[in-house]
Amino acid sequence: MAQNAWLRSAGILVSCVLIYPAMTTAQQPTLNLMPLPAGAQSGTGSLGVDSSFSVAFTGHTEPRLERAGERFLRQLARQTGLPLTLKPAKTGKATLVIQADHASKEIQEVGEDESYVLEVTATGAKLTAPTPLGAMHGLQTFLQLVDVSPGGFAAPAVTIHDQPRFPWRGLMIDSARHFIPFDVLRRNIDGMEAVKMNVFHWHLSENQGFRVESKKFPKLHELGSDNLYYTQDEIRDLIAYARDRGIRVVPEFDMPGHSTAWFVGHPELASGKGPYEIERRWGIFDPAMDPTSEKVYKFLDDLIGEMARLFPDHYFHIGGDEVNGKEWDANPKIQAFMKAHGIKNNEALQAYFSGRVQKLVTKHGKTVVGWDEVLVPGVPKDIVIQSWRGQASLAQAAKQGYRGILSNGYYLDLGWSAARHYAVDPMSGDAANLSAEEKQRILGGESCMWAEYVSPENVDSRIWPRNAAIAERLWSPQEVRDPASMYARLDFVSARLEWLGLTHRTAWRHMLQRLAGSASTEEFAGLRTLTDVIEPVKDYTRERTAPAVPTSGTPMNRVVDAVPLESDAGRRFNELVEQFLAAACHDPAAEAGLRAQLTTWRDNDAILQPLAQRSFLVKEVAANSQDLSALGAAGLAALDAIAKGQPAPDSWKTQQLAILEQVKKPKAQLLLIPAPAVQKLIEAATAGSACSTAKP
Amino acid sequence: MAQNAWLRSAGILVSCVLIYPAMTTAQQPTLNLMPLPAGAQSGTGSLGVDSSFSVAFTGHTEPRLERAGERFLRQLARQTGLPLTLKPAKTGKATLVIQADHASKEIQEVGEDESYVLEVTATGAKLTAPTPLGAMHGLQTFLQLVDVSPGGFAAPAVTIHDQPRFPWRGLMIDSARHFIPFDVLRRNIDGMEAVKMNVFHWHLSENQGFRVESKKFPKLHELGSDNLYYTQDEIRDLIAYARDRGIRVVPEFDMPGHSTAWFVGHPELASGKGPYEIERRWGIFDPAMDPTSEKVYKFLDDLIGEMARLFPDHYFHIGGDEVNGKEWDANPKIQAFMKAHGIKNNEALQAYFSGRVQKLVTKHGKTVVGWDEVLVPGVPKDIVIQSWRGQASLAQAAKQGYRGILSNGYYLDLGWSAARHYAVDPMSGDAANLSAEEKQRILGGESCMWAEYVSPENVDSRIWPRNAAIAERLWSPQEVRDPASMYARLDFVSARLEWLGLTHRTAWRHMLQRLAGSASTEEFAGLRTLTDVIEPVKDYTRERTAPAVPTSGTPMNRVVDAVPLESDAGRRFNELVEQFLAAACHDPAAEAGLRAQLTTWRDNDAILQPLAQRSFLVKEVAANSQDLSALGAAGLAALDAIAKGQPAPDSWKTQQLAILEQVKKPKAQLLLIPAPAVQKLIEAATAGSACSTAKP
Repeated sequence: MAQNAWLRSAGILVSCVLIYPAMTTAQQPTLNLMPLPAGAQSGTGSLGVDSSFSVAFTGHTEPRLERAGERFLRQLARQTGLPLTLKPAKTGKATLVIQADHASKEIQEVGEDESYVLEVTATGAKLTAPTPLGAMHGLQTFLQLVDVSPGGFAAPAVTIHDQPRFPWRGLMIDSARHFIPFDVLRRNIDGMEAVKMNVFHWHLSENQGFRVESKKFPKLHELGSDNLYYTQDEIRDLIAYARDRGIRVVPEFDMPGHSTAWFVGHPELASGKGPYEIERRWGIFDPAMDPTSEKVYKFLDDLIGEMARLFPDHYFHIGGDEVNGKEWDANPKIQAFMKAHGIKNNEALQAYFSGRVQKLVTKHGKTVVGWDEVLVPGVPKDIVIQSWRGQASLAQAAKQGYRGILSNGYYLDLGWSAARHYAVDPMSGDAANLSAEEKQRILGGESCMWAEYVSPENVDSRIWPRNAAIAERLWSPQEVRDPASMYARLDFVSARLEWLGLTHRTAWRHMLQRLAGSASTEEFAGLRTLTDVIEPVKDYTRERTAPAVPTSGTPMNRVVDAVPLESDAGRRFNELVEQFLAAACHDPAAEAGLRAQLTTWRDNDAILQPLAQRSFLVKEVAANSQDLSALGAAGLAALDAIAKGQPAPDSWKTQQLAILEQVKKPKAQLLLIPAPAVQKLIEAATAGSACSTAKP
Repeated sequence: MAQNAWLRSAGILVSCVLIYPAMTTAQQPTLNLMPLPAGAQSGTGSLGVDSSFSVAFTGHTEPRLERAGERFLRQLARQTGLPLTLKPAKTGKATLVIQADHASKEIQEVGEDESYVLEVTATGAKLTAPTPLGAMHGLQTFLQLVDVSPGGFAAPAVTIHDQPRFPWRGLMIDSARHFIPFDVLRRNIDGMEAVKMNVFHWHLSENQGFRVESKKFPKLHELGSDNLYYTQDEIRDLIAYARDRGIRVVPEFDMPGHSTAWFVGHPELASGKGPYEIERRWGIFDPAMDPTSEKVYKFLDDLIGEMARLFPDHYFHIGGDEVNGKEWDANPKIQAFMKAHGIKNNEALQAYFSGRVQKLVTKHGKTVVGWDEVLVPGVPKDIVIQSWRGQASLAQAAKQGYRGILSNGYYLDLGWSAARHYAVDPMSGDAANLSAEEKQRILGGESCMWAEYVSPENVDSRIWPRNAAIAERLWSPQEVRDPASMYARLDFVSARLEWLGLTHRTAWRHMLQRLAGSASTEEFAGLRTLTDVIEPVKDYTRERTAPAVPTSGTPMNRVVDAVPLESDAGRRFNELVEQFLAAACHDPAAEAGLRAQLTTWRDNDAILQPLAQRSFLVKEVAANSQDLSALGAAGLAALDAIAKGQPAPDSWKTQQLAILEQVKKPKAQLLLIPAPAVQKLIEAATAGSACSTAKP
């Protein structure tokens, strides 16, 4: 059976490390799970889920696990619309019986056992796990298994042995550049739980804001946050919320750079003269702490002490990235100190600072995490390197005995496709050649949501659904890497994530409504047609092409802020073109689909232009709309040429490609995603292609 | 100028009672306001709204008004995406200056001044009002005025003099049959504020649940609510929340019938033997309080006293509807009492009970509100009658000196169109012939959301957007009654209401996703196409046609629960058919639009059937899907016949109408809305119609 063939368990009780062949579309798993488990074996039939569904605990329980059971039932009720009894039973008789062997650690540790076994049969389900952590992961798997079926809601019979590939699977949210309110953080933590991520890395201080209440140094948040900060009580609540979901919270206080906001209230920490103001622009700025001042270390000792008590996790992130050194160069006292202590350059000075701060962190009982830059000769072996530079940097660290986590390739703000993130593996490149012992030091990875261009309104759509693909990369076996399978499951998971309150799909519509104003139904549909196939420019192009210097006060209500970073409709059109070309243009159904889509695009500008005249925010994409119409016309012309069965003349090709060149240029910081696929159609219509003479 | 013509102020300072001609489509107001104000006069230009927008108070302020100012700024920031300063200034320099003359009443009163004047010019805006109530209404008007424009966000220059037509403009939510959580109530109160409703009538007890914590009689909520009740602290919070929005909270405790849930914990109150259980079915049931027991009145005295203190409003609703009297007939003690006291029948017995309860309510300082049945000879004149029977009943009461509010015609659960509710006027029918003094007694109306078929998930979509049309009926001048204008504005307001957190549009999509499971994009679009044009059966047909006896435990995850009660797409199709027929079928654009829509319908069943095979919830509407395809084919055949320019033969007509007869039959408790419009097309294609010979 295909269901059995796609996953071959090496033995239910013996091993959980199973082999996935690189799956093609034809071999797609029928289980809509993301992340895919380490191993699964299909059973016979399915377990019906109706209003009588119940949950019971046997074995170890604790309040957190009981809450997880209630949350599971609430979520199951929400996703099925069934009126379930929302209290787990304490007896063994239930549809789903959960057995945890023993408690997990008081403070969640890196590498703690997160495994579980989930057996679903036609008559019941059993979830067993060494610890509540594994049990909670298994509950999320069960939620994903339940789907509508011909006979009611049901979970397919299956036996799943699961455990993560990496022990550190994180999402970093920068809530310093733009403040992100708690309700937004909470629903993102819910999303992390759904895809089995286990570290929320909280980027809490920046040039643009110091976001934590400090009772020791209240001027930090009072003067450094525009009154947008988290109180300590709120932080404790969020940590408890995350712990309830098997998620550690690692705070980051970035220093000695990225710290202008500290200096508004405490200019004495800085290397420059001050006074300082909260930074409103984006980029790398001059202000940096004074590494030569003992007052600075005294201050940091107190602050780190306070924060180390507030954040129970064993790890503490000190940032350490991107110091330009200009304030150090300009400060004679610092220059004198360097000379006196034989510190040759700013890199060495930063190393000196990092070493001092690391000692303080260690003194307060924590292990240091820092960005690549903190790794300099002589740094103690117990620090963890977070690499924005890449696998080579990570591998080099591992060879030297340092543990590391990968973030290069996982920057969600760069606008990459899910497939591109998905292809990034912490163990690829130089890391692939490490010894087994060295590989152990690569703990996993973290996606990063840097917040120059996110608001509480659109941040969900910048994180999701793409983050789920990264979560799978970090949880599932390395062999799970077929993008087609990933996308099929991602579509499904993305819809499910909105049940958790995430707004990555709905906010888009709301934001379009704002910029459409009192558009007619037809105009709004036209706006949807356009915005369905455009994406914001990639990487750091947005900074470079901004119409005015962007600041933290720039409204984020433009089309570029509203559309998802990856266009589903664009991806599907590309797939359809590939399908059409693969059949040497002999696929009437695909051709009809392409024609329908291209015709809609061609005719769309006429619908949208009146709205563009009424709304300045739609007006901004008027050129994109014209491009889409031109693209539709070009694609239709290509299909017509192909249908003729004779190669189109070179002059036509030249003309069409000139149009495409125009269309491909970003406008309003947006890209028209189907342009390359239409170019393929044009090329297929010309001499030498498989299609140009294919028809009689 | 048309903008000036459609509203003619009778004088800015003299009068606010202005005349609206019954507006036709051509005269539609350009102001997207709902409810329309009593009077408005357009000015020149518009007021730009950008990040520098500010609010200041002059005159009277109070914490509630300051919070309203902050809420206004938050809402304006949300709807524009602008990063506004969220604190109102206390100085007079600001974009919008708000001046309230004096405080409003400590406890909001019926008929308190709610008027305001809003002057918007190109350079600033001024809102003046006698009380914070009017100021808060004016803020909502301003929010509706701000829209995207060619040059940025802006509010048109206009002078608005506004005041409500009726002092009692309510929404009743039954949170007894199905419990409605606080977050859902809060967002509905936000919606009420947006459309200037001022009474939240809270139906709190029923056969199916007693939803209020009673400290005096805890068994009421402990045994009568399945643990789904509101604590007194939560209730106080909600009352404060409503007061902040200019909304009174009137509690209803329905007695002597509709009270089974009371008897679970207190069987001694009942006329029957008991024991009692919480009722799970819908309908009218036998249990009723014992009107002959002094213990009952002692109990009610204590309970009403407790609740009168909890709910500060001057009015207290005692229900009083639908007692079938069976328990009274069967109880010899009651029969003996009736004989002894000369009580001739159950109606008189209920009148006796009501009279006793009214005295208790009065004793605790409140004015009684009750349903029609409480109006019997001799009842004191200060009670307020809520009429589910209609304007005649209301007029009769007014003639006798009783005040009343209309709910007949405003039952949101019956699935009527917004236009049908909109046409119901409290002053029409018999009420139109009342004297001026008698008319004063008609205080307004209340829409009613009875909760047999609502869940926290879909209740928003059962209330909104139709409730906004009722709100306009109760606020705006009687002459405002053009449905086309209403619908144009309703579409806009409906989108705006989702900014408040209401889910009447998004929940639909989520519910469809649930029943579509892992549908393909194309299948999901097919499901949208079908569900866009079906509506639940109307009035009480759902009860009569239920596939199984519905109970409070019946899942509400079916298509009939997901689709809106009024189909926008169905309405637009009907309008297009009307437009086509009005042009004697000579309207090529309309014809093209009809053909496109009909073709999509005809082809839709082929897309949807595979999904119906996989999902039991989609399977339920498989016949509706076949009907839609048949309807599409029939409509296309009619257009083809019309295009021929010769009357279609009678045999064809007979055949098509037979198909239509089938299509019109409800299936899965759903109606196919475009069927009558397609029938018109068929008739237009046959002999004797303006279209049948119209083409050469």
